[in-house]
Amino acid sequence: MAAFPLNHVIESQQFDRDLLETVFRTADQMKADLSGERRFAKALEGRIMASLFYEPSTRTRFSFESAMLRLGGAVITTENAREFSSAAKGESLADSTRIMNGYADVIVMRHNEAGSAARASEISRIPVINAGDGAGQHPTQALLDMYTIVDAFDGIRGLKIAMVGDLRYGRTVRSLAYLLTKYEGVEIAFVSPPVCKMEGDIKAYLDRNQVPWHEETNLDQVVAKVDCVYMTRIQKERFHDPEDYQAAAGQYILTPERVRAMKPSAIIMHPLPRVDEIPKDVDDDPRARYFEQAQNGLYIRMALLYLLLSK
Amino acid sequence: MAAFPLNHVIESQQFDRDLLETVFRTADQMKADLSGERRFAKALEGRIMASLFYEPSTRTRFSFESAMLRLGGAVITTENAREFSSAAKGESLADSTRIMNGYADVIVMRHNEAGSAARASEISRIPVINAGDGAGQHPTQALLDMYTIVDAFDGIRGLKIAMVGDLRYGRTVRSLAYLLTKYEGVEIAFVSPPVCKMEGDIKAYLDRNQVPWHEETNLDQVVAKVDCVYMTRIQKERFHDPEDYQAAAGQYILTPERVRAMKPSAIIMHPLPRVDEIPKDVDDDPRARYFEQAQNGLYIRMALLYLLLSK
Amino acid sequence: MAAFPLNHVIESQQFDRDLLETVFRTADQMKADLSGERRFAKALEGRIMASLFYEPSTRTRFSFESAMLRLGGAVITTENAREFSSAAKGESLADSTRIMNGYADVIVMRHNEAGSAARASEISRIPVINAGDGAGQHPTQALLDMYTIVDAFDGIRGLKIAMVGDLRYGRTVRSLAYLLTKYEGVEIAFVSPPVCKMEGDIKAYLDRNQVPWHEETNLDQVVAKVDCVYMTRIQKERFHDPEDYQAAAGQYILTPERVRAMKPSAIIMHPLPRVDEIPKDVDDDPRARYFEQAQNGLYIRMALLYLLLSK
Repeated sequence: MAAFPLNHVIESQQFDRDLLETVFRTADQMKADLSGERRFAKALEGRIMASLFYEPSTRTRFSFESAMLRLGGAVITTENAREFSSAAKGESLADSTRIMNGYADVIVMRHNEAGSAARASEISRIPVINAGDGAGQHPTQALLDMYTIVDAFDGIRGLKIAMVGDLRYGRTVRSLAYLLTKYEGVEIAFVSPPVCKMEGDIKAYLDRNQVPWHEETNLDQVVAKVDCVYMTRIQKERFHDPEDYQAAAGQYILTPERVRAMKPSAIIMHPLPRVDEIPKDVDDDPRARYFEQAQNGLYIRMALLYLLLSK
Repeated sequence: MAAFPLNHVIESQQFDRDLLETVFRTADQMKADLSGERRFAKALEGRIMASLFYEPSTRTRFSFESAMLRLGGAVITTENAREFSSAAKGESLADSTRIMNGYADVIVMRHNEAGSAARASEISRIPVINAGDGAGQHPTQALLDMYTIVDAFDGIRGLKIAMVGDLRYGRTVRSLAYLLTKYEGVEIAFVSPPVCKMEGDIKAYLDRNQVPWHEETNLDQVVAKVDCVYMTRIQKERFHDPEDYQAAAGQYILTPERVRAMKPSAIIMHPLPRVDEIPKDVDDDPRARYFEQAQNGLYIRMALLYLLLSK
Repeated sequence: MAAFPLNHVIESQQFDRDLLETVFRTADQMKADLSGERRFAKALEGRIMASLFYEPSTRTRFSFESAMLRLGGAVITTENAREFSSAAKGESLADSTRIMNGYADVIVMRHNEAGSAARASEISRIPVINAGDGAGQHPTQALLDMYTIVDAFDGIRGLKIAMVGDLRYGRTVRSLAYLLTKYEGVEIAFVSPPVCKMEGDIKAYLDRNQVPWHEETNLDQVVAKVDCVYMTRIQKERFHDPEDYQAAAGQYILTPERVRAMKPSAIIMHPLPRVDEIPKDVDDDPRARYFEQAQNGLYIRMALLYLLLSK
């Protein structure tokens, strides 16, 4: 295998089709290995990952830390990095990053400010992986989403996907949209209340990359036609009027009735955590893939850590 | 050895006499191994324990994590699981548990709500160990208490034990009472201020299991007669009137005078942390076993992790 | 090598010249090993370090934890030890320490009260390393500082060092002053605003040990004459009047102009984090050693852990 060309994982746009295939094939290997002969159980023995979470996200942190441990590596971790950072004593992110270079072999960084991971990567000699930077990106989430889609369909040419819910503030759907442009024949339906519409920058990017998209406000118009329903949570804070929220949220619930209308071959995704936008009764439907999707995060993160550190 | 029959450790009542013997014999092995040839040093290599503490308890967490590490396993940990949970984003404990199933091989859960660990175990494919659930149970504490008693006496038939202090709200003494019914010839004295009396459910359980018990308010009536004095802390919050508290607390201190009145073969236990209910001067008395008791927690937790994970 | 004579690392004064040489030679070995054949990669396999931080200090904690992991050891950790301690439930530091003795092989303790680490070491059967105790000491910082100086100069006889900034409350410069007395021919210039002067106890200690020192308020009088400029941060809280602070702080900045006035062979140190007392432009100057200094903390801590635990 050719050496992995990336030094850091900062944003979805770094990944072209070849690179995606490399990551996904490696994730396949990791998945097989975990229930198989554990050839990778000590692949990163002696290596240290620093989890630098400037805001807590136990789920994402655990996913990365489990990935590192499954490869035989070790972890130093904080959910409290803000104290370590400029916010506490006025230190710059650059200084913090240089210091961490002395203690670890890879940095996984969650930060509240967009662009933080990119700035850290500029001065880091060790790989930086962006685990979410504010309103910016969350590229490993996008990769695990794309991996789940690719895994579910034998070739995704002609795939129709509906992204549902909060498309304006949802980092997840934005990052996934970038990756979808790498595949041919994809069509996207953006389904959201008017206040949560997908932003213009993504639409323009899709246009430039010849990805057809259209907008809907009515979920019922869409569920029967698509191969993938990607649900997201609508946050109450987006609405001025609580009644508007109640009205809106109710329309973007994937009820069992709506699931029944879906194609037999279609899949249901959600970045989790969910609240009530997918009722529990749907969990046993074979089309529900959101727990598998979360599990795929482990394989994707194992793949990235392995590719970045075993060069 | 027959396969360990439990999939999860949720409450004391799961343990019958045979199971207790299995756990205690395995704890003996762990204790011997730690100062011996370390045959178990890599017994759980490659396995991951998730410490999910919805409320912090550094002592209990460290005891479990040390146990896992001593067996060669690895740990992902949070003292901040509430953020990860429904409380933060509205996610259900069920969803959190399913996600954790993808990242770890065993879950150790401390939760503020009684019944949480049981609910998690219902949907978990990996073992769940209850590390304390609110007013509910703390079974590994009960096991280490029972182990300490069994270890101290060559056969516990005829054992007289005094439980002293806050018996009403003390999860520890409640869980231990369940286990004591598994042994024959045990007698219990409940010694407490009137506001902190043992609850009726435990008394009824003891009656059904033919375990004689009686209540006392005067510690001096009891110390000379029993084989084990199990002290607990009386919490100020239980009393409406601070003066009542002062008066009560003073009567349930195991002073050196009271220790002198104890049988030479008797033992003193305490789940720790203590405040002043056992003065420091007592620590050097050979009957003081509370630090050994805490240490036994390590062996018991190693035993449980080993039995649950090496099936 | 003779057995390391210390059981605990509590304060700088424990180290005489021979002991410093032992620690520094071992640190040299650790440094070489990390980029070499990794002979020490499993030196502490099976050993557990407990990071007991009663106040958070992610940087120091990570440095110790990385050191332990680089030696193949494992870590149990809390940034939240105050909850575990007397402050939360009234438990004494002595009890907490005894409990930790059952879970770990070495304790690294950061505490807000001076003397805490010493008190813990009095009852601990396992080594205690002081990682900073309030206004007290931070001996591993002093060791890494001294190591950086010794490493930079081929024999430090005749070394002139300027300590700049907050000398009154800066634990770092106080601890380093103790160690400097172990070397011959050292001269110290204390450069600070009048409100942040070095305390009398240190000056008396230097006098007793024949170490010449003098005080300055003007940094420009000093920079050209010394071999080492040790910068520290001046904290706003020390000043009653914000304007006084602004005036003072401005005078203790190591500007590029001042750096240009320094000897070509001199070095610039800082315990980090810095705010603006060393501008970023200085970082690329070959005399800037503060990032190397932080990195040296890893080697020193690996050396101490190794020396304490492999006896």
